[in-house]
Amino acid sequence: MPQVDLTGKRVLVTLPLTDEQITRIRSLVERAGGTATFVREPLVVDADTEGASIIIGNVPARTLHGSQKLEWLQTSSAGYDHYLVEGLLAPITILTNATGAYGQAVSEHMLASLMCLMKKLHLYRDGQRASKWEDRGPVTSLVGATVLILGAGDIGTSFARLVTALGAHAWGVRRHAGERCDPFERMFTLDDVSDVIGEADVVACVLPSTPETRGFCNAAFFSAMKMGAFFVNAGRGDLVDQDELAEVLANGRLAGAALDVTSPEPLPPDHPLWLQENALITPHVAGFWHLQATVDAVVGICASNLEAYLDGKPLANVVRAGSGINRAL
Amino acid sequence: MPQVDLTGKRVLVTLPLTDEQITRIRSLVERAGGTATFVREPLVVDADTEGASIIIGNVPARTLHGSQKLEWLQTSSAGYDHYLVEGLLAPITILTNATGAYGQAVSEHMLASLMCLMKKLHLYRDGQRASKWEDRGPVTSLVGATVLILGAGDIGTSFARLVTALGAHAWGVRRHAGERCDPFERMFTLDDVSDVIGEADVVACVLPSTPETRGFCNAAFFSAMKMGAFFVNAGRGDLVDQDELAEVLANGRLAGAALDVTSPEPLPPDHPLWLQENALITPHVAGFWHLQATVDAVVGICASNLEAYLDGKPLANVVRAGSGINRAL
Repeated sequence: MPQVDLTGKRVLVTLPLTDEQITRIRSLVERAGGTATFVREPLVVDADTEGASIIIGNVPARTLHGSQKLEWLQTSSAGYDHYLVEGLLAPITILTNATGAYGQAVSEHMLASLMCLMKKLHLYRDGQRASKWEDRGPVTSLVGATVLILGAGDIGTSFARLVTALGAHAWGVRRHAGERCDPFERMFTLDDVSDVIGEADVVACVLPSTPETRGFCNAAFFSAMKMGAFFVNAGRGDLVDQDELAEVLANGRLAGAALDVTSPEPLPPDHPLWLQENALITPHVAGFWHLQATVDAVVGICASNLEAYLDGKPLANVVRAGSGINRAL
Repeated sequence: MPQVDLTGKRVLVTLPLTDEQITRIRSLVERAGGTATFVREPLVVDADTEGASIIIGNVPARTLHGSQKLEWLQTSSAGYDHYLVEGLLAPITILTNATGAYGQAVSEHMLASLMCLMKKLHLYRDGQRASKWEDRGPVTSLVGATVLILGAGDIGTSFARLVTALGAHAWGVRRHAGERCDPFERMFTLDDVSDVIGEADVVACVLPSTPETRGFCNAAFFSAMKMGAFFVNAGRGDLVDQDELAEVLANGRLAGAALDVTSPEPLPPDHPLWLQENALITPHVAGFWHLQATVDAVVGICASNLEAYLDGKPLANVVRAGSGINRAL
């Protein structure tokens, strides 16, 4: 029998589940005495979140109102900064995320975007739309290139593995000092970046948005990059000073930039970055549910955390502890 | 001293050489008693090729007139079918190519193009040019995918290594039966293709143009491919029935096709393939001189073959033996 009693409590699940997965989660919740409701994320309204004791899967932030009943929110995303806005979560609410589920999808998207720029496929695509057979000249390779990766967690490490497999040297940057770990050849902290950024042929950013990372990729950052280097951002749009980035793309200092995140999102239709030929912009799609492997991994993390919760065991991926709620009551 | 006497003979070199490389090749030729002229390929005219005893590097085919003096043509390309047109080379002329120099450049271009299609970057690029922030839905991955590679030489094997490094299974197809060799998990001949093509998530073609390969990718070929699979061609345009390919792209049988070669080249501006949203067309640029590593490798092959020629030793990469010329005379 479960350790935790959910009698009179409701669990809201917003994941894209198969019928079989729905049956399994419903059965777990009902054995603990609770009820489970299943509403897909885009359809969630206030009435769904109000009164829920547990929410599994992302919900629109506007539907959260600091409910004192919400014991635990398990996100389906790796990012969670949008839930930390004042007033959305009560002090008691535990927040866990789905870190570990997005490494493959996001790192593959980053690699595809980077190689697209290196081989000038974005320019050839533009030519194709005009039925133009036009040679765009020299290209570059990851073989022997140095790739500096800001953020050495799940996604950054996956990306490091990919570029290493294609012949590059991966250097990692963590927010806090620590041991070097494979496949990174060297490891730095954010304070070291200005010293080494000039040696990198590619700078790839997968940092979360925190007070210390916001605006980190500023004028000084870009002007210290190697002439002709590439920039990739799949972290958060607010890490980057986008006006400066547009400038170093326009003046040819950078060979290209692949951006899956911008600030704000969507990027406004009149933003100058849209028009930069050597920017490759994708609308925050690297992760999400676009790769089946991601869906499987997110559902796995959520189901395993739900079992832990009901058994009164520690949760994985806690990003905000909650001020405390006696889960056994 | 060299074994071969080039007295009264001229060597035409059309490679993009550094001053140092020019000095080295000139010295080799002059020690054998000959003279060397250096003209870059696009600038070569009849007067350059006429009377040359040796040509190192590609020349426009229209400047070759079956000269009886031409003992040896060393191409800078891997492809050489355009020199086999009746009347361009005298029966005596030995033809060698630069196979082995293009594996890295062409296989990386193929991988970039394939990943671009898998991650829908071509569609996001189209959206970007219209300042549109629009999600294009599910993507696919090389992890666990089966990639059938037609042509298991230098380029095909390099491509197999890349996709294997990213988690795919590489199956190879050779024109003639032979041992399986790493990294191919299985090896087939052209006759086997119709039996196994339905199992492949990606079919990539790097075959040369020969009587048995021309038109190989026809209606039966495409209709046997797995629904939603990808097609890549970096071999020769005339391997493919382009009308059929346009049809299977339009009706959604194939998820995408990356083409670096077409028939004819340039692809005429009014050809329907230009307009296929899920075709990614590049103007035969995967190889050429676009990657520095290719230039270095081509120059290495040519210089080493020139030394062998002057020493009276066997040449590497012979693709047409020549009816015989006594090189020592």
